[in-house]
Parts: sequence; C-alpha cells; structure tokens
Amino acid sequence: MTQKQPAPRIRKSPEQVRSAVHQAVIDLLSDPEGADLTIPAIAQRAGVNHTSIYRRWGSREALLADVVTTRLERDSPLADTGTLRGDLIAWAEAGVASIRTPEGRLLVRAVALSMPASAQAQAERAQHFQRRMHSIEQIRERAAARGENPPPLEQILDQLLAPLYIRAIFGIDPPATGYPELLVDRLLGGAGGPGTA
Amino acid sequence: MTQKQPAPRIRKSPEQVRSAVHQAVIDLLSDPEGADLTIPAIAQRAGVNHTSIYRRWGSREALLADVVTTRLERDSPLADTGTLRGDLIAWAEAGVASIRTPEGRLLVRAVALSMPASAQAQAERAQHFQRRMHSIEQIRERAAARGENPPPLEQILDQLLAPLYIRAIFGIDPPATGYPELLVDRLLGGAGGPGTA
Repeated sequence: MTQKQPAPRIRKSPEQVRSAVHQAVIDLLSDPEGADLTIPAIAQRAGVNHTSIYRRWGSREALLADVVTTRLERDSPLADTGTLRGDLIAWAEAGVASIRTPEGRLLVRAVALSMPASAQAQAERAQHFQRRMHSIEQIRERAAARGENPPPLEQILDQLLAPLYIRAIFGIDPPATGYPELLVDRLLGGAGGPGTA
Repeated sequence: MTQKQPAPRIRKSPEQVRSAVHQAVIDLLSDPEGADLTIPAIAQRAGVNHTSIYRRWGSREALLADVVTTRLERDSPLADTGTLRGDLIAWAEAGVASIRTPEGRLLVRAVALSMPASAQAQAERAQHFQRRMHSIEQIRERAAARGENPPPLEQILDQLLAPLYIRAIFGIDPPATGYPELLVDRLLGGAGGPGTA
C-alpha cells in the first residue's frame, strides 16, 4: 500500500462520489504491492460508505467497467481524418498511447479481471466490447459513406483490438515506432506477409 | 457453489496434492456463481491445508500459472505436419478447441487475472508467454530448417495468439469454421485484405 491516507468521510455529491470512487480504483490498480481490489477497500480509499458503491454500481465488475469505459472514451476521442486508413491509425494511436501508460495497461487488465464466469461479468465484458466496437462501427460507417470498403468488424477485432489488448493485459510493449500504421496496414491488406514486422 | 462436497483431509502424496489443487482451481473457475479464487477457498475445495499451497507455489499467481501452463501443454502437443502453414494451423486448431471449452476460456482468463501490477504477477505472465512462445519458436525453427521464411515472433503474437487469447478472455466465440486457417493465411500474407473474413 502507498502512504496516502484514506480520504475523510464527509458528505459528497453524487458526482463527487463517482469521481472519488473512480480515483480510488485507479489508485488501487496502480498500487505496486498489488492491493486487493475489493469494494470495501475501494470504499475506504475513496472515503465513502461501501453501501453507496453497491447501491450505485451493483457489483465490482460493473464499477470496473464504468471506470474503464469512462477513461477509454476520454482518452480516445473519435477523429475524422478523411480516410479509413487515417481514422483507424488515429484510433490505434490513441490505443497505443493508452497502453504505454501503467494506468492504461491496468485499466484494460481490469476489464479482463471482470471474471469469473458469472453471467453478470459476462454481460459487463460484452457491454465493454460493444462500446469499443461502437467507435469502430462509426469509423466503418464513415468509410462506407465515402465509398471505401472497410473490413468486417470481426476482422478489426482480430487484427487491431486484439494485439493492443493482449499487449496491455500481459504487459508486452508494442514496437517503439510505427506500430499503429503496421497494424492498420496489415488489416487493410497492405503488409500482411512475412518480414514486414 | 456446486453441490460437490470438499474432499476429506487425508494424507496425500505431493503428486496427489498437486493434482487435487489443480482440480480445485478448475472447479472453482468453472463455478457459474463466480466463486472466490482465494488460496483458502482452493485449499478447502482440494482438501489440503492452505499452508501446503503457500509452501509449494508461493502465491496464487504462481499456482494459476502452473495450472494454466500444465493444461495448455497437455492440450496442445506440437505437431510436425511438414510445412510452416500446417504446423501453425495445427497449433491454432488446438487453441480454438481449447477456447471453445468453458474450462479453456477460464484458464486463459486466469492468466490475465494474474494481476495486479506486482512484480511477481508480471514475472508469471512473462513466463507464461515464454512457454507459449517457445512452441511457436520451435515451429519457426523447423520452418527455417526446411528453407521456409517464417514471420517474426512478434507478428505471430499479434496475428495468431492475440485473436485467440482476446476471444478467450472476453468470451467472444470464434467463427464456427475455418478460423485457424483464416488466421494463419492472414499471418502468412495470403488473405489479409477486406472482405476475407
């Protein structure tokens, strides 16, 4: 545990609760000692009552999913660069920037942590993916409107999201330069073959 | 929790302890209610003393990594089909078969669960990847000895391991047929472009 003291329990507005709880999750995830990410621990760290957390989010999985999607959407606004390739590279650049930070890596790992196999956790994971895929779906729709021929969503999952996520989850650094372009060019069929990495 | 009773605590050989503990991890991971995967819970389920688990594995992360690598190596013996493409497809087929089972999905998710960011958990994850990459490395070496030109290891991570792992972790089913071939052909440059999925 870090030396930081838990915040004192004073009355907070709903927005203050949300913000304090989100920050507590980030702090605990970042703890180098590997602090327990339980609702009581989060509540203590945030200086709120744990019943407030259960009432608002219902479960740890729902809370983690809320923190992660909030951060990821803040970190990856959707650029319109005028081309499919440019939009996908901008999306991947935001993803690479995010997983280069310990916080970003931890956040993606936190989604994966929405286990075990409870129906609830499964639904949270699916919801997280729908949100991420929604950005990609918008990029695909813009491309189609321009007359471009975007790859199917599943292929983008396999070739763009999967490498970024797996590196975030397992802490494997992406290549130092040109990685977003490399992934997108492989996806679009420009550079899939041996010897291109 | 399932209705199965914890095993009675009788004296077990080291191999029996290992086997009972591994089975307990699988059982708890498979619990549809999302049982806690703590060392005391695992010990109770296996009918062993929790001190035996700490003594033998040191941490929950090390135990999970042991269970996962044991299962994955049992499930994916390394085929020599005579070609790089054939070997990679055989490897991917074993992976797809594994993530189609709830147990296989849970096992991969358990590796991801070796969070948070403790140095220990990070080392376990790295070790897990080295083992998985070791099989791939062997496939690459055989290909090079035949005069084939295998893709770099990092590209195989991005285009073959990553899609399989991310689907296992997030519970996204792979396409029903032809998925190993699709991934390998994209990797080898045969079918990377739009419209191929």
